[in-house]
Amino acid sequence: MPRAWNLIARPTGLPGPECFSLVETPPAPLADGEVRVRNTWLSVDPYMRGRMNDVKSYVPPFGLNEAMTGGAVGVVVESRADGLKPGDRVMHMLGWRDEAVGKPPEFMPLPDLGVPDQMFLGLLGITGLTAYFGLFDVAEAKAGDTVFVSAAAGAVGSAVVQFAKLKGMTVIGSAGGAEKCALVRDLGADAVIDYKADRPLVKQLAEAAPDGIDVYFDNVGGEHLDAALAAARNHGRFAMCGMIESYNTGAPLSLQYAIRIVGFRLQLRGFIISDYMHRMNEFFAEVGPWAAAGKLKNIETIRDGLEGAPDAFRELFSGGNKGKMVVRL
Amino acid sequence: MPRAWNLIARPTGLPGPECFSLVETPPAPLADGEVRVRNTWLSVDPYMRGRMNDVKSYVPPFGLNEAMTGGAVGVVVESRADGLKPGDRVMHMLGWRDEAVGKPPEFMPLPDLGVPDQMFLGLLGITGLTAYFGLFDVAEAKAGDTVFVSAAAGAVGSAVVQFAKLKGMTVIGSAGGAEKCALVRDLGADAVIDYKADRPLVKQLAEAAPDGIDVYFDNVGGEHLDAALAAARNHGRFAMCGMIESYNTGAPLSLQYAIRIVGFRLQLRGFIISDYMHRMNEFFAEVGPWAAAGKLKNIETIRDGLEGAPDAFRELFSGGNKGKMVVRL
Repeated sequence: MPRAWNLIARPTGLPGPECFSLVETPPAPLADGEVRVRNTWLSVDPYMRGRMNDVKSYVPPFGLNEAMTGGAVGVVVESRADGLKPGDRVMHMLGWRDEAVGKPPEFMPLPDLGVPDQMFLGLLGITGLTAYFGLFDVAEAKAGDTVFVSAAAGAVGSAVVQFAKLKGMTVIGSAGGAEKCALVRDLGADAVIDYKADRPLVKQLAEAAPDGIDVYFDNVGGEHLDAALAAARNHGRFAMCGMIESYNTGAPLSLQYAIRIVGFRLQLRGFIISDYMHRMNEFFAEVGPWAAAGKLKNIETIRDGLEGAPDAFRELFSGGNKGKMVVRL
Repeated sequence: MPRAWNLIARPTGLPGPECFSLVETPPAPLADGEVRVRNTWLSVDPYMRGRMNDVKSYVPPFGLNEAMTGGAVGVVVESRADGLKPGDRVMHMLGWRDEAVGKPPEFMPLPDLGVPDQMFLGLLGITGLTAYFGLFDVAEAKAGDTVFVSAAAGAVGSAVVQFAKLKGMTVIGSAGGAEKCALVRDLGADAVIDYKADRPLVKQLAEAAPDGIDVYFDNVGGEHLDAALAAARNHGRFAMCGMIESYNTGAPLSLQYAIRIVGFRLQLRGFIISDYMHRMNEFFAEVGPWAAAGKLKNIETIRDGLEGAPDAFRELFSGGNKGKMVVRL
């Protein structure tokens, strides 16, 4: 019997087991035009935390006592739709469940790039798209720029490091602990900052980028953002992708260096990746060949089994993942 | 004997009398190509506070034991330069003194618009230029937008209110106290918020703009900026012009609503007006006719005498001025 994770309570802080319930979902016959997909990989992402709150945001909140959604990859097992047949591998947004049913526009066949399927949840999926358009479009990063990226060992951050290096930038990444810092260096970063080290980030960044930074890709907020403000050069551009530090705490952001926004003509731009979905082809045109040529390192953390999906999600907030966190079904 | 205000000590907090010295400046004969200008009006502006610190900023710090500079209007009294003759009225940046000496590129003849000379320090000078390009270029404000502007009874703010109304926007201004709020309403604002009232700004703004704001023109920082973040609609654009709240205190900025930058795709852009000096003609082409047609209200606070210039400057930080603060010599 296929199952799905329902949200059954709105969390305060880090969502505990009391918020989720794994329920059985008896299969119904397909309607005309529908397909049935058996999910093989699920994505868990920090942005999902926002959807667990009942507040107006860029994506509607998850409904209470309904199955949650999210990125997923799967195999068509039954089809009453043109263009998709059993055996086709597809990516879609009906995650957090064993089986997904819907019509073809919701299911996009995986391009044939000779890479593992779950990369379409990471470097070649929403994660990669976020890194790509955040870096090149939102922050207008270009060859020669010095780029600082926080959570550089994370899903989006590790993509930013690689894309920036492939485009001729100098890259400084921050990560927590020696192991993750080594990973970021392996990805090609020119300098790495350990935010768990016993030295203020603002000092570490000033040393790593003595001439300042042109671009900051923010996944964290908080002290990272403040350090980036302190280091930014004239006309520095910040892509504001997320502030994972505040997702669970709701603590106010305290910035010592905000005044530099004015004098250094800094630009901070928030973005959400759904605004860029229609440019997916543009993304694949550049990143697909990089992937096919083996130029990208697929950093991932795999957890097994639908039962473990909430735990995998929670781990995102304690730094439990390197690269993209995925759940294998 | 002409005199000038020297900076003789770097201030901590609000600059006291111990920071300034009024010194006599014996006139020297003009060199070839130079003019001598007797200043008639001086500008004092919040940004000058930054120049009193010895830190790298967008304008170099004032030198110790040197005359300070700033906007001024005056009359040519002696000329050894082509194109300027005694009696010509000019605007320039050698303020804080009775007499200015230099070459013509530093002295721009006042356009003949039939308005008081000191308006070229306010609505028709750097102040107006700041409001104009901050609003229309940095924040990309357009007809139909809802615009929130802080310090709306101040020099830049009162210009923003008027320019925005002349271009068909809905305007919400904040000011401190009933008298200033009445002034902002007189300028045409659709709604006015008294930031000294005993109610949180975030609530007052939510009521004044129930559908949110498209543009925020920030002169203040702090709680105003946070309220604007809370009220911003999708793709809201913030022109970051100054943060007068922090100029003297250096206190960190605390933002409860920063996370909305991401989800609502907000754009915060700092700017400094010297980047727009080369577009002065564009500004005069639109604002000059407004002034000549009597469509602009010249709100100003006049203080008399060079001796009083430091006091006039200090008053900017206690809300002592309505509109542009100018010193009449």
